[in-house]
Amino acid sequence: MGKNLTKRAEDYSKWYNELVVKADLAENSGVRGCMVIKPYGFAIWEKMQAQLDKMFKETGHENAYFPLFIPKSYLSKEASHVAGFAKECAVVTHYRLKNAEDGSGIIVDPDAKLEEELIVRPTSETIIWDTYRRWIQSYRDLPLLINQWANVVRWEMRTRLFLRTAEFLWQEGHTAHATEKEAIAEAEQMMNIYAEFAEEHMAMPVIKGIKTESERFAGAVETYCIEALMQDGKALQAGTSHFLGQNFAKAFDVKFATKEGSQEYVWATSWGASTRLMGALVMTHSDDNGLVLPPKLAPIQVVIVPIYKGEEQLDAISDRVAPLVKELRSKGISVKFDNRDTHKPGFKFNEYELKGVPVRLAIGQRDMDNGTYEVARRDTLEKETVNADDVVAKIEFLMEDIQRNIFQKALDHRKTHITEVNSYDEFKEVLENKGGFVSAFWDGTLETEEKIKDETKATIRCIPIDAKDEVGSCLVTGKPATKRVLFAKAY
Amino acid sequence: MGKNLTKRAEDYSKWYNELVVKADLAENSGVRGCMVIKPYGFAIWEKMQAQLDKMFKETGHENAYFPLFIPKSYLSKEASHVAGFAKECAVVTHYRLKNAEDGSGIIVDPDAKLEEELIVRPTSETIIWDTYRRWIQSYRDLPLLINQWANVVRWEMRTRLFLRTAEFLWQEGHTAHATEKEAIAEAEQMMNIYAEFAEEHMAMPVIKGIKTESERFAGAVETYCIEALMQDGKALQAGTSHFLGQNFAKAFDVKFATKEGSQEYVWATSWGASTRLMGALVMTHSDDNGLVLPPKLAPIQVVIVPIYKGEEQLDAISDRVAPLVKELRSKGISVKFDNRDTHKPGFKFNEYELKGVPVRLAIGQRDMDNGTYEVARRDTLEKETVNADDVVAKIEFLMEDIQRNIFQKALDHRKTHITEVNSYDEFKEVLENKGGFVSAFWDGTLETEEKIKDETKATIRCIPIDAKDEVGSCLVTGKPATKRVLFAKAY
Repeated sequence: MGKNLTKRAEDYSKWYNELVVKADLAENSGVRGCMVIKPYGFAIWEKMQAQLDKMFKETGHENAYFPLFIPKSYLSKEASHVAGFAKECAVVTHYRLKNAEDGSGIIVDPDAKLEEELIVRPTSETIIWDTYRRWIQSYRDLPLLINQWANVVRWEMRTRLFLRTAEFLWQEGHTAHATEKEAIAEAEQMMNIYAEFAEEHMAMPVIKGIKTESERFAGAVETYCIEALMQDGKALQAGTSHFLGQNFAKAFDVKFATKEGSQEYVWATSWGASTRLMGALVMTHSDDNGLVLPPKLAPIQVVIVPIYKGEEQLDAISDRVAPLVKELRSKGISVKFDNRDTHKPGFKFNEYELKGVPVRLAIGQRDMDNGTYEVARRDTLEKETVNADDVVAKIEFLMEDIQRNIFQKALDHRKTHITEVNSYDEFKEVLENKGGFVSAFWDGTLETEEKIKDETKATIRCIPIDAKDEVGSCLVTGKPATKRVLFAKAY
Repeated sequence: MGKNLTKRAEDYSKWYNELVVKADLAENSGVRGCMVIKPYGFAIWEKMQAQLDKMFKETGHENAYFPLFIPKSYLSKEASHVAGFAKECAVVTHYRLKNAEDGSGIIVDPDAKLEEELIVRPTSETIIWDTYRRWIQSYRDLPLLINQWANVVRWEMRTRLFLRTAEFLWQEGHTAHATEKEAIAEAEQMMNIYAEFAEEHMAMPVIKGIKTESERFAGAVETYCIEALMQDGKALQAGTSHFLGQNFAKAFDVKFATKEGSQEYVWATSWGASTRLMGALVMTHSDDNGLVLPPKLAPIQVVIVPIYKGEEQLDAISDRVAPLVKELRSKGISVKFDNRDTHKPGFKFNEYELKGVPVRLAIGQRDMDNGTYEVARRDTLEKETVNADDVVAKIEFLMEDIQRNIFQKALDHRKTHITEVNSYDEFKEVLENKGGFVSAFWDGTLETEEKIKDETKATIRCIPIDAKDEVGSCLVTGKPATKRVLFAKAY
């Protein structure tokens, strides 16, 4: 198709890197590990944000904003939390630059050293729980259901656009509750909301589960997650929701007066999803011709390309197209009529395929004569000629059908890539030759988990929420086990 | 009214600080100079964002996202730009923490020093123009019309909630054009959009003008601004739009091929408005009872307070109120029915006055018997009894009338606080006793501007766009002058 895009079968990783840049989603910046999210990529992210934000608000959450900087002493208050983030954080030590006295340029002013270093937030539990101490006195102040849209920084050494960047955008929910039960219900609710968002809007099937202790968020009692499967058979964690117990309440001394008058520590959750979802979206649906976007998240849902010679013909086509554009917009469908005279139709076809626009209409002289449009759908690349009278209904059908079809395709792929195994040899064979999730009995020990990771690079992605109780034996140690867990190599 | 709010006449500054906290807009955090924007304050900011974002998109701008960090060498590339920001920037020098070997706690790892220090963006011209070099090759790539919603950091030593904080939220537009004329038109357009937003949505009258050289943005050729007047007679800059000439294109070597095939530097603008607008909103309309919010930006536009004894009466009132709530919401009016049984009506009345809810409905047994509501408007504190059949129409009227009325009130205040003076004595007398804008002839020199600033603390807020050409003489030097400029003490 002339897009010079590496094929997935040749080099999946290279295909991804090229596609993200060529489809104008994002690119690397001059700052190590930090990306620039380009307008087309950001428009998709805005649609994700709008939908998630709506779902959060419908479940009673409000947005707020907390400081970018976290004093080093705050981060240090919860022991496992700081252990998890200390190794990869950006530290602000000074607050001024000045001209070097030897005229060599601009230098950091050594006289402007901060008394206490500030960490650029890798996540905001500590600064938020320091705030909640002031906000929570009584059971009347609970539950506190807050979300923040923000940028965070984790100094990753090996970065990839969207999947792993030093700075990324995300939302982080932080809630406070009077009871353990209510906090657990909240953490589960948010996992379910992420799953609903992933499946219904991203058209990306996910498995809901809980993390093993070693994969838990630093400071959490339990981490719930949703795990998706990419086309190359690697898993991707697409959202996490943590039950934090009273860990942060204790670290920041946040107590409340119960109805009965006693003082108790507050129960907490936190939950987040990030621009990583952009990477998941790309890798779930796209093909060797470029992006394939679900209609619900596509910035442009329908593009109309006129095929014409000369201004007169373009004017005639424009007149025909104008009421269609208007009608589609009135139905909330975003349409672009690409009448640029600087590019030929073939170039435009390629461009919109690359950018994953779900439906493309083309209209030339023959269509003008016959009262038709050529309608092409991006997911299957099928084309057909449709009567002008039927084209709106066709487009409405395609908006739903493409959304449904790409979800089903991803689901079929996942179904054929969950393999139950009962021996370690079989486990290694499946991982090596087929990929995907491998469902196996595990004895529940960190030791076995690490041995498998060291030997195969596969980690336990989750213990699925709907895992049945079974009688089995660990594939490595042979010890008794009661549940199958899902292993996979992962992003 | 029992709100324990300092009166404006007693101490305006204290009134403001108290009100921002008591009305749940924002509070200081444990991080020096950084605020926490609380849910109610953030809900107002979200309304501002949504409206501005709509206006930007309607004028062809797209959102994107650029890195938080700026390498020191980038910031240094435009000489006047770095001079303007070097003195107040947060500098990241390290990327890791570790446990101190003596067990004294967590310390910055001296082995994890960055090769080049990173500045937390105080504004993004440099990182963006470094990116634009890759995006712009030809006249076909222009204009490039981009906006970013982001957090920025300027290490201010004296901070005040919303008005001046070390970290703040803002949007920054960065556009690139083929011609000087087009760039100037863009900068003017964005000033006009800010003015329209301020007047029609914030109900805050503003004066459009250009800044003198000394007040210009660091790196700009011309700075356009909108200036508002607060109730205490001090001015507040509420948005700026800069024509940057080719300064950043030259610093970052961004050239484009013209239609004719020559290589030329690109012309630029940038423009921004920030959470400072929240401070302006509070100080423009609010009174000794609390916030007064324009209906267009109020998170809750109508609150309904039931006055009842016992559950049975509350149920009856709830039944009466339910269809009204539904009808108002269907008209896009945000309504809260406050049926909390933990607080008395008087407490609720106080709370919603403090929070500036534009319209309050109360309904008790007498209203139930008579088929009425008590309707109170926040701006004038007037109350009246309205027939249930007329209440929707009344509320719709009030949404418009309150918006109009508070704008008119602010406009009247400003009109009586623009004083033309012709001598320096008169100038000082007006500044001292009346405040507001002082309109005076100025000889155009930096020297005179600084003398006036040193002696009176008044700065030239702007040279109004609509200033007439006149013949006059400078109020300090007596030298010939052709335009009156506006002086004021300012936030």
